[in-house]
Amino acid sequence: MGEEGLKYLAEAREQTGMPVITEVMEPALVPLVCQYADILQIGARNMQNYALLHAVGESQHPVLLKRGMSSLIEEWLMCAEYILSHGNTRVMLCERGIRTFESYTRNTFDINAIAVAKQLSHLPVIADPSHATGKWEYVGAAAKASVAAGADGLIIEVHPRPEEAMSDGIQSLKPGRYAKLVKEMKAIAMAVGREIQ
Amino acid sequence: MGEEGLKYLAEAREQTGMPVITEVMEPALVPLVCQYADILQIGARNMQNYALLHAVGESQHPVLLKRGMSSLIEEWLMCAEYILSHGNTRVMLCERGIRTFESYTRNTFDINAIAVAKQLSHLPVIADPSHATGKWEYVGAAAKASVAAGADGLIIEVHPRPEEAMSDGIQSLKPGRYAKLVKEMKAIAMAVGREIQ
Amino acid sequence: MGEEGLKYLAEAREQTGMPVITEVMEPALVPLVCQYADILQIGARNMQNYALLHAVGESQHPVLLKRGMSSLIEEWLMCAEYILSHGNTRVMLCERGIRTFESYTRNTFDINAIAVAKQLSHLPVIADPSHATGKWEYVGAAAKASVAAGADGLIIEVHPRPEEAMSDGIQSLKPGRYAKLVKEMKAIAMAVGREIQ
Amino acid sequence: MGEEGLKYLAEAREQTGMPVITEVMEPALVPLVCQYADILQIGARNMQNYALLHAVGESQHPVLLKRGMSSLIEEWLMCAEYILSHGNTRVMLCERGIRTFESYTRNTFDINAIAVAKQLSHLPVIADPSHATGKWEYVGAAAKASVAAGADGLIIEVHPRPEEAMSDGIQSLKPGRYAKLVKEMKAIAMAVGREIQ
Repeated sequence: MGEEGLKYLAEAREQTGMPVITEVMEPALVPLVCQYADILQIGARNMQNYALLHAVGESQHPVLLKRGMSSLIEEWLMCAEYILSHGNTRVMLCERGIRTFESYTRNTFDINAIAVAKQLSHLPVIADPSHATGKWEYVGAAAKASVAAGADGLIIEVHPRPEEAMSDGIQSLKPGRYAKLVKEMKAIAMAVGREIQ
Repeated sequence: MGEEGLKYLAEAREQTGMPVITEVMEPALVPLVCQYADILQIGARNMQNYALLHAVGESQHPVLLKRGMSSLIEEWLMCAEYILSHGNTRVMLCERGIRTFESYTRNTFDINAIAVAKQLSHLPVIADPSHATGKWEYVGAAAKASVAAGADGLIIEVHPRPEEAMSDGIQSLKPGRYAKLVKEMKAIAMAVGREIQ
Repeated sequence: MGEEGLKYLAEAREQTGMPVITEVMEPALVPLVCQYADILQIGARNMQNYALLHAVGESQHPVLLKRGMSSLIEEWLMCAEYILSHGNTRVMLCERGIRTFESYTRNTFDINAIAVAKQLSHLPVIADPSHATGKWEYVGAAAKASVAAGADGLIIEVHPRPEEAMSDGIQSLKPGRYAKLVKEMKAIAMAVGREIQ
Repeated sequence: MGEEGLKYLAEAREQTGMPVITEVMEPALVPLVCQYADILQIGARNMQNYALLHAVGESQHPVLLKRGMSSLIEEWLMCAEYILSHGNTRVMLCERGIRTFESYTRNTFDINAIAVAKQLSHLPVIADPSHATGKWEYVGAAAKASVAAGADGLIIEVHPRPEEAMSDGIQSLKPGRYAKLVKEMKAIAMAVGREIQ
């Protein structure tokens, strides 16, 4: 994303009060993205891009590290460790589904990985049910499962008119459905002794 | 399991009042197993053993059909259909984890498959978090996720002294931990509008 | 395959002088198939059908054991061992491709498995490039690779009019192309110190 | 690899007359690596690092593009296309094995991918049997299979004392074994109408 796009994000933050997360894709752009975004996202395809991990590790910005689509849980934790070792301790892990033989869904949501990552590490674990399923019909079930399994946060794609979305419309919820899902997730969170803000 | 083993199961049922489920592994044994068990289980390795599916399809006994460890959701549903087509309509599907590159857990629990199977089929979907994780530490998280994702039932391995279990001890819960888990699952079931008996 | 089909195979053998291999799918049919076929085939879906392995293990007929589509090499060898342990020592292993995320080909041909199986076991290893690729365009390359990698034999599907084949036409070679492939394979066999009869 | 390492490589080239290939891991280093290396390598972990692909696409240096460990053949070809679209037409594809459930070998060598890539693209296809097997015992079989399947070149790791190698010793051939393999590969190449220089 170029500087123009980043400015739009910053404007959206100003108008809505919501913090901004966006992907940074090359080391040289880290300082620029830090100016505009509250959280840096490392995408699944770049999980093992060590030059990029190094660069975000030297910033003090919060980082969301997506698991590579065929990365072992241990490799994922090692990449988080690599960021930490460069001085940035504000790292969040994100499980977004892995690539398997099953093609009915876009990815296979490795729900086990949430519990494993939380046991092996002290870092927060975020679930991305939108990418982990790839179809809006299943996002709700995967989101509720994530909360029940102990996820510390979720990324859920929402779009008022998914059919017009520039990307990932097929996995985006409409606002009404999202609002209903949030209610259900709050009830599950309470059932497992957590709270959704 | 031979006839002697089946008699032990029947005796356990008599003493406890609990119904019995056990695996049937060859067509010729279906009538015998029907005498002693309340539910016939088709194991993951036999999901596409058509002679066996045919035989259980001709009985009127309830059947639990485990998903093959590398079976597509559609293949799994087709095998259920194959049983149904031979006249037995009492079929339950069971997601027990699939084989992927990830080896930290015994299998990868395909939580998406629960929502997909429920959408594509009218059959009940049972989750097996014990096999889907293979380690007792993660059974609770997977079980709770299953309930939240809409599973209609669960199979959970429990053993008073897992270290002495003849098989699968590593994925078995002790009774106390199991009792605590049931409470949590009941609360989640209620949160998603279901009820655990 | 019922008895009628088996009679056709036997007739084909009589008319052509070629030995017959066919799949046996349930324990009770082993004696019947032994009457008509020279080699019993255990299909990939039945690799871990222990009742069937037991039955062919008690016959003295040669057996071709296909690797399950998601079976570890070690599991495959253990299933061969299971047949051997019941007294039948005439077992051949068959690599026919495994299930992976890649969907451009029907299966992923695990060429490494040929060398591994030959190192870990004394049994002959047969390659099935037709199933391992699933598309006739790639059968030749996979067949030649098999010979170079040390396979002891090959199964190649051939059909005079593949578009009319009742199954697997898309992976069948026409006779002319097959004849040309045999010549190339003979040259490769000679290059690696083997001979194709 | 830093500039000091690159200088060693250049010195090795001077002393031996052999061209040098080495991995470039970040966009900013492309000009430096171009000064010292004859061929730029894009590693499997960076196959979809678009900033890096862009940078090598703007150089005129030959590029070896390794397939990502869980990349579809089509994604691999699209990444090659991405380099080509930035003006660099000197791209070679490299199959180095994919990640599957099989763990006996380090990777599963997708021999089918060689034939598929050659059919779908005009680019040369190189095989890397060292990474594709991960164990020196199987490198020979995989290398010979590659030649038979139509590969246009091979990368084979060789080390005079593998047990002292700083990395990948376990998959490195000793020089004597390598020399013997080259002879066998030459014979196979001739059998399929090719020539190894």
